[in-house]
Amino acid sequence: MTDSLPITERSRLRRSHPRGHFDRATINDILDAQPLCSVGYVMEGKPYVTPTLQWREGDHVYWHGSSASRALRAGCDAEVCLSVSILDGFVLARSGFHHSVNSRSVTLFGTAFRVEDAEEKLTRLTRFVDGLFAGRYAGLRPDRTQDLKATTVLGLKIAEGSAKIRTGGPNDEPEDYTLPIWAGVIPVRMQIGSPVPDPRNLDEVEMPGHVRDFRLGGQNEPSTRG
Amino acid sequence: MTDSLPITERSRLRRSHPRGHFDRATINDILDAQPLCSVGYVMEGKPYVTPTLQWREGDHVYWHGSSASRALRAGCDAEVCLSVSILDGFVLARSGFHHSVNSRSVTLFGTAFRVEDAEEKLTRLTRFVDGLFAGRYAGLRPDRTQDLKATTVLGLKIAEGSAKIRTGGPNDEPEDYTLPIWAGVIPVRMQIGSPVPDPRNLDEVEMPGHVRDFRLGGQNEPSTRG
Ligand SMILES: Cc1cc2nc3c(=O)[nH]c(=O)nc-3n(C[C@H](O)[C@H](O)[C@H](O)COP(=O)(O)OP(=O)(O)OC[C@H]3O[C@@H](n4cnc5c(N)ncnc54)[C@H](O)[C@@H]3O)c2cc1C
Ligand SMILES: Cc1cc2nc3c(=O)[nH]c(=O)nc-3n(C[C@H](O)[C@H](O)[C@H](O)COP(=O)(O)OP(=O)(O)OC[C@H]3O[C@@H](n4cnc5c(N)ncnc54)[C@H](O)[C@@H]3O)c2cc1C
Ligand code: HEM
Ligand code: HEM
Repeated sequence: MTDSLPITERSRLRRSHPRGHFDRATINDILDAQPLCSVGYVMEGKPYVTPTLQWREGDHVYWHGSSASRALRAGCDAEVCLSVSILDGFVLARSGFHHSVNSRSVTLFGTAFRVEDAEEKLTRLTRFVDGLFAGRYAGLRPDRTQDLKATTVLGLKIAEGSAKIRTGGPNDEPEDYTLPIWAGVIPVRMQIGSPVPDPRNLDEVEMPGHVRDFRLGGQNEPSTRG
Repeated sequence: MTDSLPITERSRLRRSHPRGHFDRATINDILDAQPLCSVGYVMEGKPYVTPTLQWREGDHVYWHGSSASRALRAGCDAEVCLSVSILDGFVLARSGFHHSVNSRSVTLFGTAFRVEDAEEKLTRLTRFVDGLFAGRYAGLRPDRTQDLKATTVLGLKIAEGSAKIRTGGPNDEPEDYTLPIWAGVIPVRMQIGSPVPDPRNLDEVEMPGHVRDFRLGGQNEPSTRG
C-alpha cells in the first residue's frame, strides 16, 4: 500500500488544484471525521445520490443497509462515487466573487463490492458500531441471524480519489483591501449535544463512557480500538 | 404550483416510507436549513458527486461555480440528482440492528438549466449572498463583468423529489426493553462559532449584523428578506 493515491484522469483536480490532496493520511482523516457520506450511482443512465453512513477500516470504506435497498443493489459490483464533505466556515470577502467556504472533502471512485461471508459481515458491522461507540457492541443484545441476513454491507477499496481542503481567511484582490468592508470567517462545526436517555431505560442503567465522551473523528482506526 | 410534489416511480420511498414527505413546505424547510448539497451527475456512464452550495428561491433551487467547471458543464441540460442531508443525532438502541440516526434529507431529480441572461444571473447571485448574509451584497465592491462571465449559475425546478425525516428515540423489539442496556439519542447540530475578522480589515470597520447574528435556515425566502 503506497502512501498516496495515483492521480488519474478522473480524480485530477482542475479547479483550485493547490487545494487537492492525494495522500492517504489526509483522506483518512476526513473520512474518520465525518461518518455521513453521499453515495452516487447510476441506474438506467440516470444519477442517484443517497445519504448514508460510511466507516473506514484500513484502506477500505464500508456502508450498510437493507439487502432489499435499491441504492445498495444498484451500487453493488457497479461504479460508485462516494463523497464526504465537512463545512468548516463561511468566508466573507470584499467582493461577492471572492466569497467562499472553508471545508474538507473527499471524493472516492470505484466498483463497490458486497461483503458476502456472514462472519466477515458481522465483524464489519461490529467495527461500525464500535467505531462510533467504543466497546458498545459486546454489551448489546446479539443481532439475530434473520436481521443480519436482511443487512447488506458494501465496501470500496480506497484506490482512486482525492481530498480537497480550504482553510484561512478571504483572498481578496489587492486593491480591495483599502475598502471599508467587513471581511472574515464565520466558523461552523458539528456540535455534540447532551445525550437524551430513552425514558424506558431501566433505573439501574448508567450512561456508558462511549456515550458520555462521544466524539467524532479518528476513533475508528482498528489499531487504536479497544 | 401545487402544495405537494407528485410521487413518481423515481421518488417513491420503498424503504421506511412512513418517513417520506412530498409537501413543498417540508422540502423547502430542509433546503433552507442546509446550504451544503451534493449534486450527482453522469459522465460517460459513470457517477460523479460534487459537494456544492445550493440556495432556494420559490420553487427553484440554484448552485454556482466556474463556467469552466466540469461538474457544472456536465450538469447543464442534463439529469442531476441533488441531495441535501442534515444529521440531527445518533440513535442508540438495545441491539445493533436498531441503531439509527435522526436526520432530515431531501432528494431532488430533474434536468438542470443554465441561467443565461446576464442580469438574471446577477440577481440570482445577489440573492445567494443576501440569503446567507442579509443585505450584504449592496455593501460589497461590485462584481466585475469578467468575474460574472466566468461564473455559471445552474437551476433546477423543484418538481420531482422527496424528503425523509426521522426523529425520536430508538424503536427496539418489545422484549428488549427489559435489558439493562443504555439506549437513547446523542444529538448533533451545526454550531456557528464566533466570527474571525480578517486581520486586514480597516480599523473603523464594524462587524455587521448579518455576521454578528448569522444563522442558517429560512433566511433565504424572497418574501422575508429585508
Ligand atoms: C462544503 C463545500 C461547498 C462547496 N461549494 C461550492 C460552490 O458553491 N461552488 C463551486 O463551484 N464549488 C463548490 N465547492 C467545490 C466543489 O466541490 C468542486 O471542487 C468545484 O466546484 C470544482 O468542481 P469540478 O467538477 O469543476 O472539479 P474538477 O477539478 O474538474 O474535478 C476533478 C476531480 O477533482 C476531484 N475533486 C473535485 N472537487 C472535489 C472536492 N470538493 N473534494 C474532493 N475531490 C474533489 C475529484 O476527484 C474530481 O473527479 C464546494 C466544496 C465543498 C466541500
Ligand atoms: C444522515 C443520514 C444517514 C443515513 N444512513 C443510512 C445508513 O447508514 N444505511 C442506510 O441503509 N440508510 C441510511 N440512510 C437512509 C438512506 O438515505 C436511504 O433512505 C435508505 O438507504 C433507503 O435507500 P433506497 O435507495 O433503498 O431507498 P428507496 O426508498 O428505494 O428510494 C426511492 C426514492 O425515495 C426517495 N428517498 C430515499 N432515501 C431518501 C432520503 N434519505 N431522503 C429523501 N428522499 C429519499 C428518493 O426519491 C429515492 O429516489 C441515511 C439517511 C440520512 C439522511
Ligand atoms: C455567499 C457567497 C458565495 C459563496 C459562499 C461562494 C462559495 C464558493 C465556493 C465554496 C467555491 C468553490 C471554490 C473551490 O473550488 O475551491 C466557489 C467557486 C466559485 N464562485 Fe463562489 N461563492 C459565493 C459567491 C459568488 C459570486 C457572487 C460569484 C460571482 C460574482 C461567484 C463566483 C464563483 C466562481 C466563478 C467560482 C469558481 C472558481 C474556480 O473554480 O475557478 N461566487 N464559490
Ligand atoms: C451504529 C450503528 C448503526 C447505525 C447508526 C445505523 C444506521 C442506520 C440508518 C440511518 C438506516 C436507515 C434507516 C432509514 O432508511 O430510515 C439504517 C438502515 C438499516 N440498518 Fe443500520 N445502523 C447501525 C447498525 C446496524 C447493524 C449492526 C445492522 C445489522 C445487524 C443494521 C442493519 C440495518 C438494516 C437492515 C437497515 C435497513 C432497514 C430498512 O430499510 O428496512 N444496522 N441503519
